[in-house]
Amino acid sequence: MKTISILGSTGSIGTQALDIVRMNPNDFEIYALACNKNIDLFEKQIKEFKPKYAVIYDDKSYSILKGRYVGDTKLLSGIDSLIKISSDKEVDFVLGAIVGNIGLIPIYHSVLAGKQIGLANKETLVTAGELLMPLAKKHAAEIIPVDSEHSAIYQCLKGHNKSEVSKIILTASGGPFRKFTKEELIEVTPSQALKHPNWDMGRKITIDSATLMNKGLEVIEAKWLFDVDIDKIDVVVHPQSIIHSMVEYTDYMVLAQLGIPSMKGPISYAMNYPYRKPIDYKPLNLVEVSQLTFEKPDKERFPCLDLAYKAVKMGGTATTILNAANEELVYKFLDGKIKFYDISNEINRYLDVLPIIDKPSLEDILEIDSETRRRVRMER
Amino acid sequence: MKTISILGSTGSIGTQALDIVRMNPNDFEIYALACNKNIDLFEKQIKEFKPKYAVIYDDKSYSILKGRYVGDTKLLSGIDSLIKISSDKEVDFVLGAIVGNIGLIPIYHSVLAGKQIGLANKETLVTAGELLMPLAKKHAAEIIPVDSEHSAIYQCLKGHNKSEVSKIILTASGGPFRKFTKEELIEVTPSQALKHPNWDMGRKITIDSATLMNKGLEVIEAKWLFDVDIDKIDVVVHPQSIIHSMVEYTDYMVLAQLGIPSMKGPISYAMNYPYRKPIDYKPLNLVEVSQLTFEKPDKERFPCLDLAYKAVKMGGTATTILNAANEELVYKFLDGKIKFYDISNEINRYLDVLPIIDKPSLEDILEIDSETRRRVRMER
Repeated sequence: MKTISILGSTGSIGTQALDIVRMNPNDFEIYALACNKNIDLFEKQIKEFKPKYAVIYDDKSYSILKGRYVGDTKLLSGIDSLIKISSDKEVDFVLGAIVGNIGLIPIYHSVLAGKQIGLANKETLVTAGELLMPLAKKHAAEIIPVDSEHSAIYQCLKGHNKSEVSKIILTASGGPFRKFTKEELIEVTPSQALKHPNWDMGRKITIDSATLMNKGLEVIEAKWLFDVDIDKIDVVVHPQSIIHSMVEYTDYMVLAQLGIPSMKGPISYAMNYPYRKPIDYKPLNLVEVSQLTFEKPDKERFPCLDLAYKAVKMGGTATTILNAANEELVYKFLDGKIKFYDISNEINRYLDVLPIIDKPSLEDILEIDSETRRRVRMER
Repeated sequence: MKTISILGSTGSIGTQALDIVRMNPNDFEIYALACNKNIDLFEKQIKEFKPKYAVIYDDKSYSILKGRYVGDTKLLSGIDSLIKISSDKEVDFVLGAIVGNIGLIPIYHSVLAGKQIGLANKETLVTAGELLMPLAKKHAAEIIPVDSEHSAIYQCLKGHNKSEVSKIILTASGGPFRKFTKEELIEVTPSQALKHPNWDMGRKITIDSATLMNKGLEVIEAKWLFDVDIDKIDVVVHPQSIIHSMVEYTDYMVLAQLGIPSMKGPISYAMNYPYRKPIDYKPLNLVEVSQLTFEKPDKERFPCLDLAYKAVKMGGTATTILNAANEELVYKFLDGKIKFYDISNEINRYLDVLPIIDKPSLEDILEIDSETRRRVRMER
């Protein structure tokens, strides 16, 4: 029985995590749930799962729910409460599924408290991997990735010698614009990206998938999670998204994890780790899938991928800048204020002009993040 | 440094094993080499690798080499010598790469002596898995498969909970007759099977690949090696032979091992186990391969696959009969004495008419094997 906190229980990852709790009610005790604003769903979750604590990050939403909620769960608000439920002695496992950089702070404290952490928040390692990973080692925190790619790599490394890894190969669907020419991409609109082939995703991630920045961020995440040189991380486009990622060893043996495209697998894997439990989805049927194809990512049409490598090589807070600038630029693109290639061009410019701090503290990272966002919002 | 004996050093597996020794001269000390008749190559190997013992199984070939050899290696002959070099105290690792059922006896003694064994001889587990696997457990012998399929499965199981395996999926190239109709197969000739798509193999194995009996034997081998229920073992046709096999776990996550089709990988993996060493072959380039395809095996056109399942379910020496009858029938087919479907029809008949011994001893197995071969040779 694991005592768990789910940060971001009303989001896509959080609701699927609660499905897994429903399927294995004897394996989990819910210590706390946390959401931002979606209090109607959150109230239902509280009533069903009866956590000890329920944190509503947004003050106003907290007040509303506090006014009407009757029950035994203790309602809390604010960042200190998020930190409490992420690091409390009673908690065994923390699912970090809060979108955006607010999710970084509680996970930082989970790491300091040496928790087992299911990490679904991409920003955490992209912006603060250099800070967090040595702390995780020091405090024996166990970070289990919830991305399908990193979960795949985690599984392909388990039981094998990490010193014998020669390459990590991340697969990429190629995104909704995989077959667009450069000329078409120059004029592409957000609505054209709406329908992504394999994964059901939010608006921001859909654009990241279209620019391949999503994969760039995953390259950075992989670098920190698995402590490998960035030049040992490759990306291959695999439109069917059946092979979730691969590890090549020094004897050129490649291990891969395959499955249907679903987040439920990686969520369940992290939550149940080191065990596996049956899940309510379809098994992979390769005969039905019939073929898997592979292509080289086109770095000319999709320059964001190379920017991720560039930021890692710059070191320090460069990846924080990359992540923050990208997010704000994607929102501008979604609002129709900038064009497709403005995203990569502007990120590149910010990497070159903004100051980089080496060996940053959490405060440095949060400040650089805010400052970058402010700059992007202000300009143009 | 491992002290090793290579049984079958002049064959395809044996010579590749010696390549691996050449590449990592400080990792291996060769205690013994063994061959059957190919004494010209064997003499060169003795001179290069200077083993303590060299066994020539065939008496006449032994006498010839004994007459001309000058050097420090002690030349021996016969089955007792094979047993000695497979079970001697000084030996850490035995590579069992003798073709046919003569290879079974020394490996049986390696198992009793609790050795680390690289098993390339398919017959061993097909005919005697029921006998050998409990003995391996009892004597803490470590059997590492050298087949590419079983090596893949071994790697996909390593580090994961075996009790959580839901399925083992063996991949099959489909063989040279994959696209032949039943009508064409009725009249097919051995020479049409000569060119196999991905693997360079001997004549007998090429026909096994054409009938899919090769895969049937591997299903049986997998059943014993990995101690799984036969109904949990599936076969999928994958003509490119890039995915070497897969393991599905209870959460429907599938782990696979991929690589270029080459025996050197599995040989090196077994010899260097639990480490990996670089090998002199090309890494897998999935972009170059470009696509992987999958089909259901056609059990009507290729009935041998089902016969393997049938034999396992019959238990005892049924798989010994299957293996011996198949081998003799394949030779008859190669000699033009019988037709393609006579192989499966006759195996099926022998399974039904020959007596089955439950819980056989090594002597029972060897006798049933000989008796089956005698019957097949005698008839028609």
